[in-house]
Amino acid sequence: METLRVKKGPRTLGLVINRPENQNSINAALIDDFHRALDKAEADPECRLVVVEGANGVFCTGMDFSEVAAEAAAQNHESMRSAKYIELIHRFTSVPKVIVAKIDGRVTAGGVGLVAASDLAVASQKSQFSLSEALWGLLPCCVLPYLIRRIGFQPAYRMTLTTQAVSAREAFDFHLVDEVTDDLDDAIRRWMLRVGRLEEETIHELKRYFRRMWPISAETEEFAVNEITRLVSKPKVIRNITNFVAHKQFPWEQTSGER
Amino acid sequence: METLRVKKGPRTLGLVINRPENQNSINAALIDDFHRALDKAEADPECRLVVVEGANGVFCTGMDFSEVAAEAAAQNHESMRSAKYIELIHRFTSVPKVIVAKIDGRVTAGGVGLVAASDLAVASQKSQFSLSEALWGLLPCCVLPYLIRRIGFQPAYRMTLTTQAVSAREAFDFHLVDEVTDDLDDAIRRWMLRVGRLEEETIHELKRYFRRMWPISAETEEFAVNEITRLVSKPKVIRNITNFVAHKQFPWEQTSGER
Amino acid sequence: METLRVKKGPRTLGLVINRPENQNSINAALIDDFHRALDKAEADPECRLVVVEGANGVFCTGMDFSEVAAEAAAQNHESMRSAKYIELIHRFTSVPKVIVAKIDGRVTAGGVGLVAASDLAVASQKSQFSLSEALWGLLPCCVLPYLIRRIGFQPAYRMTLTTQAVSAREAFDFHLVDEVTDDLDDAIRRWMLRVGRLEEETIHELKRYFRRMWPISAETEEFAVNEITRLVSKPKVIRNITNFVAHKQFPWEQTSGER
Repeated sequence: METLRVKKGPRTLGLVINRPENQNSINAALIDDFHRALDKAEADPECRLVVVEGANGVFCTGMDFSEVAAEAAAQNHESMRSAKYIELIHRFTSVPKVIVAKIDGRVTAGGVGLVAASDLAVASQKSQFSLSEALWGLLPCCVLPYLIRRIGFQPAYRMTLTTQAVSAREAFDFHLVDEVTDDLDDAIRRWMLRVGRLEEETIHELKRYFRRMWPISAETEEFAVNEITRLVSKPKVIRNITNFVAHKQFPWEQTSGER
Repeated sequence: METLRVKKGPRTLGLVINRPENQNSINAALIDDFHRALDKAEADPECRLVVVEGANGVFCTGMDFSEVAAEAAAQNHESMRSAKYIELIHRFTSVPKVIVAKIDGRVTAGGVGLVAASDLAVASQKSQFSLSEALWGLLPCCVLPYLIRRIGFQPAYRMTLTTQAVSAREAFDFHLVDEVTDDLDDAIRRWMLRVGRLEEETIHELKRYFRRMWPISAETEEFAVNEITRLVSKPKVIRNITNFVAHKQFPWEQTSGER
Repeated sequence: METLRVKKGPRTLGLVINRPENQNSINAALIDDFHRALDKAEADPECRLVVVEGANGVFCTGMDFSEVAAEAAAQNHESMRSAKYIELIHRFTSVPKVIVAKIDGRVTAGGVGLVAASDLAVASQKSQFSLSEALWGLLPCCVLPYLIRRIGFQPAYRMTLTTQAVSAREAFDFHLVDEVTDDLDDAIRRWMLRVGRLEEETIHELKRYFRRMWPISAETEEFAVNEITRLVSKPKVIRNITNFVAHKQFPWEQTSGER
C-alpha cells in the first residue's frame, strides 16, 4: 500500500504509517489504506491483534495541511475527509480485533484520535502527545468524543486549551496510554498472551457491549464532522493553513495586520 | 445465615462472606442472605456502616460456576440469578447506610461489582482485582455500569479485555479502592469518625442525589441482565463452564477440536 | 467593588475575593460583583485570562451561613441565591475568556465549585479542598455536576460522603487542579504563553464545543437548585445553621435532645 507498510506476524497484523516526508500526517490515501488493512485483518480468523505504529520516530501528526490547503474553501472535501476519519476511529472501536497503538515518538492532533480509539496503547518514554488544533483556530472535534471517553473530561480539556505536549508518563497517568516502556514489543507480547486466549467472537461482543456502555452516537459523530468542517472553512483559518503550507509561518508569528 | 457471618459492632454491621470451600463465590443463597442482612441494617437507625469482607483471604470470586453448570441451558435460572445480583449492587448504592468493602485478598468477576458499588473501599497491599469473564466467553455485563461509573471507561475496558489482575496500588490509582493499607480496621475507624457525624437522612439524600448525577437506568440494568443471560446460554460457553466444573480444565487448554 | 478587588494586568484581569472577615464566603454581593467583573472582561477584546484568587490565605469557603441564617425559612431567597450561584459557575464555563483559579489556602463547599468550573486551576502545596455540606444536612448540589465532569464520579463521591479535606497533591491526582506549585504566578505566566496564542473566537468555540461534549443541561441545573433549596428549608438544617451562626456550635456537638 502507498501509505501503510504491512507486517504479518503470528496472529498479528502490523501496520506502519509510512509517510515520513509528511510527518506521518493523515491524508485521504492513508485512511483508505487503513480501511483496506482492516478488511484484511477481518478476513483472517486467526488474527487477534492489529498493531499500529509510525515510521521514523513519529507516530502520527494529524491532518495533512498541504492536502487541506490544496482543497481550501472546498467545504465538501473537508466534510468528506473528516467523515472518513471519524468512520476510521469508530471502526477501531468496533472491529472484532484488538487494536494496539505502538507509540515511539510524536503524536499530534488527529494522531491522538487514533490512540484514543485503540483498545490498548503502549508508548516509549520519549513519546509526546499534543492537541495543537486551537493554535490554528481549529478544534479536535472528531477526536474529542473518543478522547473524553478514554481519559475523562479535564485532561482532554487541558490538552485542547493549552495545546501543550504531555509526556508519556502523564499520558499514562490519565490512561491515554496503558503502559510506558522502552521495550514496546515485550508489552505487546504480554498482551498477546492474554488476548490470545479470547475467542474472536468474545472480542466482538466485548467491543459491542462497551460501545453500549458509553455510547458515541451517530448524531455526535455527525455534529463533530459538521463543526470541524465549519471551522476549516473560516477565511481566517484558511489563511492560517495556507500561510503555513506556503511559508512555514505560524499564525502567532503573523503581524496583526495580516490577521 | 448460611453464607454470611454477621458481626455486630458499635453503629456497624459486619458481613463476612463465608463460603471458603467455594472461594467465596456468589450463589443464590448468598444474594438472599445479603438482602436479609441489609434489611437488618436498615431496621437499625443507629447503624451507619455496613462492612463487607470475605473469609480466609479471599474477598469474593464472582458467580459460582458449579451452580451455573448445574442449571446449564436453563435460561430462566441465569436471568433470575443476574437480575438478583444487579438488584443487590443497585441496593448497595441506594440503601441509607454507608457500605464499606474491606478487602484482604483476591477479588474476581462479580466480586469486583460488589466493590464498585460500595460507597468506600479499603484494600490490603496483597489484594488483587481481576475481571476474568472474557476467558470463558462471558463479559462482566452487570458489573460494568457500576465499574465505569467508579473508575472511568479505560481502566474498566483494559481489565475486561486483558483479564489481567491489577494490584491494590493500581486499583487505588484509578479509584476502584479509596485507600490501601494493611491496617484495614484503622481506615474503617477513621471513616466512621467522619461518617458517624452524618444523619442517616443525609446519607439517604446523598445516595439518591448521586444516583441522579450519574444515572444507571432500569433499562441499562435490564440490558445487562439480558446480555449476560444470552452469553451464558451459548453452547460454547456452557461447554467451557461444565468442562471446568467437571475436569478443572480451562477453555484455552482444550484442543481446538473440543472447542 | 465591595467584595472583589480587581487587578488589571497585561491581557489579564485579576479578581481577588476580598471578604476576609467572612472567610471569603459567598454572599449575594460577591456573586453580583463576579458578574460585573466578567462583563468587564468580556468587554475587553485584549483580555485572555481572568485569574480568580482569595485574599488572606483562604480561597473561598462557600455560602455565607450568616446570610443564610438571616433569611432562614425564606425559601425564595435560597432558591434565588443558588440559581445565581450556578449561573455564575455556568458562566465560568461559557465566557470566551480563560478562567484560572489561583489557589493558596483553604477551599470549601461552594468554593470547590468555583475551582471545578474554572478552565485551569493551580494550587500551592498547603492548599486544601473539602466538601463539608453533609455535616450540616446539606449536599453540594450545584457543585456536583461540574465537579463530576472535572474529576470523575468516585473522587467527588468520596469528598461529599467523608467531608474530609484533600491535599493539593491529591486534588492534582484526580484533576481538580491542573498544577501544584508554590510559584503560582509562574504557572499562570506559562499558561498565558500558550493561551495568549489563541484567538478569543477560538476560546469561545472551544468552550461551546466542550459544553456540548459533556452537557450539563438546564434541567440538571434547575434540579440542583431545587434540591439545595429543599434541603436548606428543612427545620433540622435551619437549626444547624442558626445554631452555628449564633453559638459557633457544630451539629454533632449538640445533644441529641437538641437535634
